[in-house]
Amino acid sequence: KNLLQNMNHKCRCFCFIYFYFFADLLPASDGDIKTMTFLQEVVDILLAYIVESFDRETKVIDFHYPNELLQMNNWELQDEPATLDDILISCRATLKYAIKTAHPRYFNQLSTGLDMVGLAADWLTSTANTNMFTYEVAPVFVLLEYVTLKKMREIIGWSDGRGDGIFSPGGAISNMYAMLLARFKMFPEVKEKGMSSVPRLVAFTSEHVAFSCCHLPLLFLTSSSELNDVFLFCSGKLIPADLERRILEAKQKGFVPFFVSATAGTTVYGAFDPLIAISDICRKYNIWMHVDGAWGGSLLMSRRHRWKLDGVERANSVTWNPHKMMSVPLQCSALLVREEGLMQNCNQMHACYLFQQDKHYDLSYDTGDKALQCGRHVDIFKLWLMWRAKGTIGFEAQIDKCLELSEYLYNKIKDREGYEMVFDGKPQHTNVCFWYLPPGIRYMEDKEEKKKHLHKVAPVIKARMMEYGTTMVSYQPQGDKVNFFRMVISNPAATFEDIDFLIEEIERLGQDL
Amino acid sequence: KNLLQNMNHKCRCFCFIYFYFFADLLPASDGDIKTMTFLQEVVDILLAYIVESFDRETKVIDFHYPNELLQMNNWELQDEPATLDDILISCRATLKYAIKTAHPRYFNQLSTGLDMVGLAADWLTSTANTNMFTYEVAPVFVLLEYVTLKKMREIIGWSDGRGDGIFSPGGAISNMYAMLLARFKMFPEVKEKGMSSVPRLVAFTSEHVAFSCCHLPLLFLTSSSELNDVFLFCSGKLIPADLERRILEAKQKGFVPFFVSATAGTTVYGAFDPLIAISDICRKYNIWMHVDGAWGGSLLMSRRHRWKLDGVERANSVTWNPHKMMSVPLQCSALLVREEGLMQNCNQMHACYLFQQDKHYDLSYDTGDKALQCGRHVDIFKLWLMWRAKGTIGFEAQIDKCLELSEYLYNKIKDREGYEMVFDGKPQHTNVCFWYLPPGIRYMEDKEEKKKHLHKVAPVIKARMMEYGTTMVSYQPQGDKVNFFRMVISNPAATFEDIDFLIEEIERLGQDL
Repeated sequence: KNLLQNMNHKCRCFCFIYFYFFADLLPASDGDIKTMTFLQEVVDILLAYIVESFDRETKVIDFHYPNELLQMNNWELQDEPATLDDILISCRATLKYAIKTAHPRYFNQLSTGLDMVGLAADWLTSTANTNMFTYEVAPVFVLLEYVTLKKMREIIGWSDGRGDGIFSPGGAISNMYAMLLARFKMFPEVKEKGMSSVPRLVAFTSEHVAFSCCHLPLLFLTSSSELNDVFLFCSGKLIPADLERRILEAKQKGFVPFFVSATAGTTVYGAFDPLIAISDICRKYNIWMHVDGAWGGSLLMSRRHRWKLDGVERANSVTWNPHKMMSVPLQCSALLVREEGLMQNCNQMHACYLFQQDKHYDLSYDTGDKALQCGRHVDIFKLWLMWRAKGTIGFEAQIDKCLELSEYLYNKIKDREGYEMVFDGKPQHTNVCFWYLPPGIRYMEDKEEKKKHLHKVAPVIKARMMEYGTTMVSYQPQGDKVNFFRMVISNPAATFEDIDFLIEEIERLGQDL
Repeated sequence: KNLLQNMNHKCRCFCFIYFYFFADLLPASDGDIKTMTFLQEVVDILLAYIVESFDRETKVIDFHYPNELLQMNNWELQDEPATLDDILISCRATLKYAIKTAHPRYFNQLSTGLDMVGLAADWLTSTANTNMFTYEVAPVFVLLEYVTLKKMREIIGWSDGRGDGIFSPGGAISNMYAMLLARFKMFPEVKEKGMSSVPRLVAFTSEHVAFSCCHLPLLFLTSSSELNDVFLFCSGKLIPADLERRILEAKQKGFVPFFVSATAGTTVYGAFDPLIAISDICRKYNIWMHVDGAWGGSLLMSRRHRWKLDGVERANSVTWNPHKMMSVPLQCSALLVREEGLMQNCNQMHACYLFQQDKHYDLSYDTGDKALQCGRHVDIFKLWLMWRAKGTIGFEAQIDKCLELSEYLYNKIKDREGYEMVFDGKPQHTNVCFWYLPPGIRYMEDKEEKKKHLHKVAPVIKARMMEYGTTMVSYQPQGDKVNFFRMVISNPAATFEDIDFLIEEIERLGQDL
């Protein structure tokens, strides 16, 4: 803390920036010193915020309702420029009301925590401010994407890491790209002749899938209600026998099954579909097998847990989001594809203003033609630098620790008074889903009444958590199950004590309900 | 420079980090000082890189061919962790071979330059490391998106800034979202009943459109060849009378025209479609009018140039990428939509694990249901903070200056010996397209032979530019036009002298061809 104050003090010494404006910064001539001073001031604010974020005495969030927050600062945009001092004030205000995602007791999302090497890499990425579409404009980043995707394919188990892949803005887009590839693979004429040239397609997935899969039918498939017809559901898992029956049904109705998305780590329960059995069916009926491992794919890096994805090497494509379980700063999502060349063939449009064929270097490094997007944000450097810093074994240790913590939580509450688990058995991932029953409703006899009350418990406890700012965990209903807590652990800063704290806090805040 | 050295020196004093590893950083207990030291070292590297990037004596790029670059550093990923010192070395190596996008003579893409306030904002965004889907996890950023989108809609000319919108990962995705909205608006049943419930749709756009529009048909429309049939082309502009004729033709063939994408600033020529006339036709035939202003939308901020988009207020949706002409760091693309509520209705899936309806705050701020993506990167803060720092008038001045520079370039070369313009008349945007004819081919009589030679000129000059690292500008062929230079100016660091330099450099490097 002293050091920080010293550094802050040092920077205050050249506090002449207070009366300057953006126009005094680079590219202004003689803007060097002012620019460095300004950026250093910002960095000092950020460093203080980072140190504070890891401190358990700090609030996870200084929560205010939208209308209040609108009043707490002047957020409006003006015609006239503000001073650099005002810019620093805006930075401080923004961080003051931000959620501290690095906080060891922040468990609210699948992406939590803040990795220091990942952060450094993201600062560098912003400074490089370029685009992934060609080797010409991102030589190093394009090579690092190549190196990293190859490594990820090796880990999946494709021989010599052969295949293809791309980083996309998130799991939804990665899954969408996989569906496009599947459609193109089965009906290459779709590229020239369009949707009307292909029969009515149908895709299969487990019901408890992430947000993205629900949205894809909207985009370009058959109808969502038809998809619902063939959704399969059992504790959030695809059951192979059911899958086969549904495929046959769909065929009989005149649909063409073209895509099965098996989920490795469902969003709510963290369940893993049985990949080997599913791949047998996919092979039998010649259907593209996709593994949506946005959440669970990272378990491939753990020798202790990778058996949960046994069979993944049989998939045609895999989505794997390092920004979730591996704590890479947002956004970082990869789509890995087994067949080489397919992505290029599927998406290539030869936009000649970008992908000139007479360039003076090896064009196979121009990746822009592999995706629907033209510009792509540089998401690779964070992952690459973190991998460098931790090594594969560092990621493994981090992932194993999160799973250990969730097992600890599960063991702690499974027989504890006032708790009920939402699904039976040990969680496969770090998702622990449970109800907390406050003493007041614990012994209610009227089951419907009890359910009605229980439904309101999690929202109230969550709202109180946010008001106190002590911790944050997600809740939700699911089907006929009333609101339950969905605890997920991806935060490398969390410890056994934080799990204990969470339980105490839920009980403290729910005591009177 | 002295200051920088002092600061570097200061940090070297606590150079004890050299033997530490990532595991010594936060969240390690007592990791505060080590973390701050490490991050400060990275920042020092970045500050030095920034100052260097703006220096015209520095190379734009230290270019190496892919195979060479692979050898120049150990980029491979290992099982074991590297030291923090190695991490710093990796950062330096990455920047050494990176393209200096901030360099005043970097003209290669539509997105060039590096804004210091935008950069500071991006560093803060990385540090906050959150997701845009709910107010709960991004309270300030969600409010700032709300404030900024409203301001952008006011500038478009929608009364009181009413309407809707979202920031997406880029122009291709923004345009895709617009198409989905158009389809849903005309056929709301598509959401429930799928593609097979709607007739064969057809969309219209000018031929010289950006990369993204060519890709969209692949995704979910009718075939691309059918689309090609109805593509319109004349100097890259939609001609209203042609458009109407094509619409009638398509209807006669049984297609349903549902979407016209007028381009405000084409990628190659920078041409603006006549929006008022196009909107008349769209109204007459009840077709969704989209304006793809990814490149040209920013001209709305210039009182001198916004007439080029007259009629934009009649559009149903507008794509506008502040990461291009406004120099906001990548990525920053907005889709603005005139009708309120439509986005939510079109995309809403009620993923209950994210968008609980019993939360304790105003749910209208949960934006995640407005898009296909689930997680969305925080792209708003860069734009908001830059707007704050420059004011609307600051953006205006920056844009006006780029257009002035391009006019200067156009005037300088239009009658200069050895130059030919690719299209007639003054460019509407900053795109100046031209051929440079080296003395050796300038007076060739055989036209075919001359063309063949000319085609090879731009690639060679460009390759030499990259090898010398002095400047970078794009080239391409188009239709029957052989390779020409496409100069675009979006870099706020560029001056009249840099334009002079570019011309001298082209002549110097092309002299012997």
